[in-house]
Amino acid sequence: MASRLRAVALALVLAITSAMAQNDPAAGDGADISTFTLDNGLEVVVIPDRRAPVVTHMLWYKVGSADEQPGKSGIAHFFEHLMFKGTENHPAGEFSAAIAAIGGQENAFTSYDYTAYFQQVDPASLETMMRFEADRMTNLVLTDEVIDTERDVIIEERGQRIENEPDAILGEELDATLYQASPYRLPIIGWMHEIEQLNREDAIDFYRRYYAPNNAVLVVAGDVDTDTVQRLAEETYGEIPRGPNLPARIRPTEPEQNTRRTVTLDDPRVTTPTFRTAWVVPSYTTAETGQAEALDLLSEILGGGLRSRLYRELVVKQGIAASAAAYYRGTALDDTSFIVYGQPRGEATIAQVEEAAMAEVAKLAAEGVTDDELEAAKKRFKRSMIFARDSQSGMARIYGTTLTTGGTVADVAEWPDRIDAVKAEQVQAAAKRYLEASRSVTGYLMPAGEEPT
Amino acid sequence: MASRLRAVALALVLAITSAMAQNDPAAGDGADISTFTLDNGLEVVVIPDRRAPVVTHMLWYKVGSADEQPGKSGIAHFFEHLMFKGTENHPAGEFSAAIAAIGGQENAFTSYDYTAYFQQVDPASLETMMRFEADRMTNLVLTDEVIDTERDVIIEERGQRIENEPDAILGEELDATLYQASPYRLPIIGWMHEIEQLNREDAIDFYRRYYAPNNAVLVVAGDVDTDTVQRLAEETYGEIPRGPNLPARIRPTEPEQNTRRTVTLDDPRVTTPTFRTAWVVPSYTTAETGQAEALDLLSEILGGGLRSRLYRELVVKQGIAASAAAYYRGTALDDTSFIVYGQPRGEATIAQVEEAAMAEVAKLAAEGVTDDELEAAKKRFKRSMIFARDSQSGMARIYGTTLTTGGTVADVAEWPDRIDAVKAEQVQAAAKRYLEASRSVTGYLMPAGEEPT
Repeated sequence: MASRLRAVALALVLAITSAMAQNDPAAGDGADISTFTLDNGLEVVVIPDRRAPVVTHMLWYKVGSADEQPGKSGIAHFFEHLMFKGTENHPAGEFSAAIAAIGGQENAFTSYDYTAYFQQVDPASLETMMRFEADRMTNLVLTDEVIDTERDVIIEERGQRIENEPDAILGEELDATLYQASPYRLPIIGWMHEIEQLNREDAIDFYRRYYAPNNAVLVVAGDVDTDTVQRLAEETYGEIPRGPNLPARIRPTEPEQNTRRTVTLDDPRVTTPTFRTAWVVPSYTTAETGQAEALDLLSEILGGGLRSRLYRELVVKQGIAASAAAYYRGTALDDTSFIVYGQPRGEATIAQVEEAAMAEVAKLAAEGVTDDELEAAKKRFKRSMIFARDSQSGMARIYGTTLTTGGTVADVAEWPDRIDAVKAEQVQAAAKRYLEASRSVTGYLMPAGEEPT
Repeated sequence: MASRLRAVALALVLAITSAMAQNDPAAGDGADISTFTLDNGLEVVVIPDRRAPVVTHMLWYKVGSADEQPGKSGIAHFFEHLMFKGTENHPAGEFSAAIAAIGGQENAFTSYDYTAYFQQVDPASLETMMRFEADRMTNLVLTDEVIDTERDVIIEERGQRIENEPDAILGEELDATLYQASPYRLPIIGWMHEIEQLNREDAIDFYRRYYAPNNAVLVVAGDVDTDTVQRLAEETYGEIPRGPNLPARIRPTEPEQNTRRTVTLDDPRVTTPTFRTAWVVPSYTTAETGQAEALDLLSEILGGGLRSRLYRELVVKQGIAASAAAYYRGTALDDTSFIVYGQPRGEATIAQVEEAAMAEVAKLAAEGVTDDELEAAKKRFKRSMIFARDSQSGMARIYGTTLTTGGTVADVAEWPDRIDAVKAEQVQAAAKRYLEASRSVTGYLMPAGEEPT
């Protein structure tokens, strides 16, 4: 759960405002969270949070880009867009207009393992949100015109977010080089040439297969009680028939890696080179007990911000790096990635920074971590969790990502104890086992005509 | 068809013996080849060759490793093994024993796009071959015991052919790095962890889907006439009902490549380093008219043996390379690979050899080829075709690979004229368009502890 919390925490630091009043109990302290399942298979989580008259309504589908069929990359994200088109009952734009009219907020996002739809409104409007959201679970009108128009929008979006960003271009090819079998190899937005071929039939197949109550998790956080949520959920989502029984989400897993690989993009739009070294490591879902927690603490000690080894050694002490950090994407259904990255400063070269970073990795693997830095890392982690829990939508998001990537409600509650239980040897063992230089994949983003070595 | 012919020719140079008598007409001159299709969809090609009382019987299935489902890598090759187990009518070994008893030969092979079964016997035994081969198209006995035993054999085979060979380990990871979407990314033999999971259900699904007359091509070459082949084919294969209608073999294609990538394996078993630089290029099936022929001639001029630019410059003139060559795998249903490789000699480093080879590539792209070297390359190509045609099994193989990778009988006949039609500008254009250093993928096989740069 660690990076679930951390990722949320990072995103929310800027967003947390009035909800931070110190004397109120934080959202979702655990004991008062309730869960139940409707007859049609919809799983519901209710997180009471009475600090303000606000409710967060999130519907999570257990489908993401990693569930796509070969050759259909981008369909999960494409479908997220299509969910904002009209239904038989409500023309396109009516749902969004209704949210805006009551001063609410909405959003949606697609990831490797899930797709989620989000509204934050006053408690009296919860029923309306549920009616709209339940409506578009089954009643979308998917004409060729709708598909064709939205495909153009997505092609434009890809152009802006990927083709215009050298870092994103490199990231795609790095992922496809890091993962040789897992579908995490494919970009969430899809390859351009495959997006261009997505059609109405693909969309309808995807909709019928994955958009069903028994493939979704409803998370409601805020100023509501469980009974009300249950009654409203039954009256809205409860009316939708169960969808097809889906097979377990078993995807190709990685073969053994025996090589060191590099991916280099040089581009005139790049001014300062960067490197990013990645390894495939277990996720919270695939790891043995304690291993993912150890990887989270490893990423924190090695490269989690200003107190980390990489920052203090490369940026502060040696002064060769403008940035140096590490990141572990622990929240994933399948094996995932651990990343170390850095950027030179002044006269330093990318090779120098990379070498210094890898020396820190090797040193940690050889000598381990001290109990003091482990304790400090645990404290920082738990602090980030407190921030995340303090946000209603942050809490809802933690439960959503956990439940759509193979975790349980209990996992969220137990996570702090599991972090506390990690021993220094486990952190060292993780570094030793997974962060070998000879089995790494490094991406280099270079100014035009420059070589990384 | 070029590399179809060349690959065959290379394999056959040592095998051609009595069939080379100069006054006999070569096999398969074109005009006398006949084709027909049985009612159940089996396509038949008959290639008369009366030089010796021998007949080649090859059954080709239009399925290979690139047709496998995600997570099931290796099932096509696994199934080739299973075809040698027993049927309801003939216990395991009986078919092979029958071939041996009459002094015949047999073989089988699995590739990306096809799987083929081959026997060479006296003409009187053709009917027996057809009966056995037709029998195992539908009557295999696939018990758990058969599957479990054969899986162990294949795991052992993979251990010997891949895990024990650093070059093969590197090759696998290089392919998976070169191709980011195409199924050519996966090893034909399968990833070890996926082979280990293949089971009886996978085998039966694969058998029912792909092993059917309407997904096969029968090629008979030798001392037989078409009427006899047709009658025998109808009496044997003709009894088998048509299988399911299969969708077109449309597979994921490559996204645009924007990066240069490397894959490095250092291993104590390696004594001399080698490099291999690969690009994704069109195949005979995906290319525009003349483009694949130009790529074939480009590979010949650049690196096709002792007369090629790479050999003469790097091995002979500069003396820095023990070997230097190029290879184009033109016979493929989808976009395929063009490879340049080399090995240093004496005090030269791998970096020197690679740099010199890439300088030759760049020079050819910048300055083109001369008419003289183009003519000489065409002549060498046509000579290799004459060798191939002179072999009965070589000819059968050319038709089999062509017909299972999207080509036609006419393509084989027309190929010499299409090679003749290639102009020097087309060869240069192919080099310019496809062989860019900044969009290449290079594999380095290094002695333990050595770096490629």
